[in-house]
Amino acid sequence: MASKQQPAGKFMAEPITPKTQLTANSDDIKTKMELLIMKIQADFCHALENEEFFGKKFTVDRWERKEGGGGITCVLQDGDVFEKAGVNVSVVHGILPKGAIQQMRSRGKELAEGDLPFFATGVSAVIHPRNPMVPTIHFNYRYFEVTDSKGHKQWWFGGGTDLTPYYLNEEDAVHFHKTLKEACDDHDRDYYPKFKEWCDKYFFIPHRNECRGVGGIFFDDLDTPDEESAFEFVSSCAHSVIPSYLPLVRKHKNEAYGDRERQWQLLRRGRYVEFNLIYDRGTKFGLYTPGARYESILMSLPLTAKWEYMHLPPADSKENELSLVLKNPRNWLKTTQ
Amino acid sequence: MASKQQPAGKFMAEPITPKTQLTANSDDIKTKMELLIMKIQADFCHALENEEFFGKKFTVDRWERKEGGGGITCVLQDGDVFEKAGVNVSVVHGILPKGAIQQMRSRGKELAEGDLPFFATGVSAVIHPRNPMVPTIHFNYRYFEVTDSKGHKQWWFGGGTDLTPYYLNEEDAVHFHKTLKEACDDHDRDYYPKFKEWCDKYFFIPHRNECRGVGGIFFDDLDTPDEESAFEFVSSCAHSVIPSYLPLVRKHKNEAYGDRERQWQLLRRGRYVEFNLIYDRGTKFGLYTPGARYESILMSLPLTAKWEYMHLPPADSKENELSLVLKNPRNWLKTTQ
Repeated sequence: MASKQQPAGKFMAEPITPKTQLTANSDDIKTKMELLIMKIQADFCHALENEEFFGKKFTVDRWERKEGGGGITCVLQDGDVFEKAGVNVSVVHGILPKGAIQQMRSRGKELAEGDLPFFATGVSAVIHPRNPMVPTIHFNYRYFEVTDSKGHKQWWFGGGTDLTPYYLNEEDAVHFHKTLKEACDDHDRDYYPKFKEWCDKYFFIPHRNECRGVGGIFFDDLDTPDEESAFEFVSSCAHSVIPSYLPLVRKHKNEAYGDRERQWQLLRRGRYVEFNLIYDRGTKFGLYTPGARYESILMSLPLTAKWEYMHLPPADSKENELSLVLKNPRNWLKTTQ
Repeated sequence: MASKQQPAGKFMAEPITPKTQLTANSDDIKTKMELLIMKIQADFCHALENEEFFGKKFTVDRWERKEGGGGITCVLQDGDVFEKAGVNVSVVHGILPKGAIQQMRSRGKELAEGDLPFFATGVSAVIHPRNPMVPTIHFNYRYFEVTDSKGHKQWWFGGGTDLTPYYLNEEDAVHFHKTLKEACDDHDRDYYPKFKEWCDKYFFIPHRNECRGVGGIFFDDLDTPDEESAFEFVSSCAHSVIPSYLPLVRKHKNEAYGDRERQWQLLRRGRYVEFNLIYDRGTKFGLYTPGARYESILMSLPLTAKWEYMHLPPADSKENELSLVLKNPRNWLKTTQ
């Protein structure tokens, strides 16, 4: 696995697939998706860099995977505004590992026996800001293809965007959900309510009986109505990340806070680590895959996290206000479905 | 689940099983094991309290489990010498959950169909000192019984003690292993080499290709040569915890260190969290068990942990010296087997 710093152009680094190949297959969904995630990565990294006070920039690692493909991992660590921000793209192909086949079958995919060549590409990001008044955001948009020995191809998209605040700000939550809903509604009016509920169910920590944050949207195995329309939907969602999140960063990044707020932020980041390491399918899938680049998978972990035994915020505190919302997810936009 | 502070007597709190029942069944292995773990917990907590500079004491939570049994969780948090120290005993019984049956079968246990009443008791501790020159220790000693519908009883012991230093001190590692070996050798000369290797294999982080620490001993499913002898062996191991560890605390707790050492300690604690949340069987088993007291399971997590993207200590540093040992476990006592 080679790792190399690259100068940033329009994209953060050269695409993983050679340019000649991308040009020759410009109508292929694989090409369109790779170019989309490259653009989303660059747009988002540049938007975050613009928020830093003293010009802190992302470091860029372009890496290749021995088994096929590679990725570009961009990390901004120890910034003034962002304590740790990771934005990763990957374009990988090879033979589907046994564990992955089992996992896919267990959620209902019908997959043939024998070696199954696959192609997977996606962008994922987790942003942990320094100021506890600025929420953490996570998003991931991906495309997957599996081909059986008869040449039959299955494809699907997956992804989502979700918000994890340290202090509840209802206006923020509404703005965030509204932006995601608009991206969904352009494609299918049923998407937002369905994917909002899926998100609350997925980003849930069973042993604490609480959600990770105030939700967003989450979907998987999306292969309707057709490849082109599904791609357009994913593109809309991915393009809604900046308008959903950047206004919250600008609004709160200069707010005053003290040690109490910082300590609470660190405890909440402990919960974030619990979800990612114990329950998150992507993290598990990644770490159990041979040849996985664990630094790119674990870039989602916060710079610092805390665990206090039996920490319970006082009943009438701002901290407890958040805890209550995490135990009782709200219908932020008062949708009727 | 009730939680209650108890005054400490000879034990940290009243045993979970009523005294009348313990007295009436004083020859029963369940009674002997419960009294052993109560003694080990109290001895160890008092020994640690004695090392604190300003008299910091353990808080004691005695809790009951709705499904049967309970436990006593002792935690010393934010001490001068110990940043977070947790020592837990539990005595639980009920019907074995499906997940637990699967896990036991997958490691070779033959278990009957139908409801399986079980009894489990054990002591476990994780001590995270403040000074990075003092290693972290973990130990766990447990007894398990399962009975099938025909009244046939299976029983076994499991456990181990292992050390996780932040800086390598060969003398410490040798002292630690030597103390454990002596406890083993009194019972079976094959135990130490076998359980030392098992420990290196168990406390291993596959995605980083490194061990959690410098090892110790680890064993499971021990049901030979007979119940009484196995109990005596476990008792010797549990009694060797203080002599294996306390000398290291006394030797290093006043050593000078700076921010460099503290930062490295926090990064290593991130690895500790990775092992416990992703791979540790006990943590997984605990968190997936209905009615589990998650605060007692997660007390093993450090107060603070860090994750830096692509952190690599310089090749000739003390930090890298430790990393190299974690990738190549040593035969500390130069045993021949």
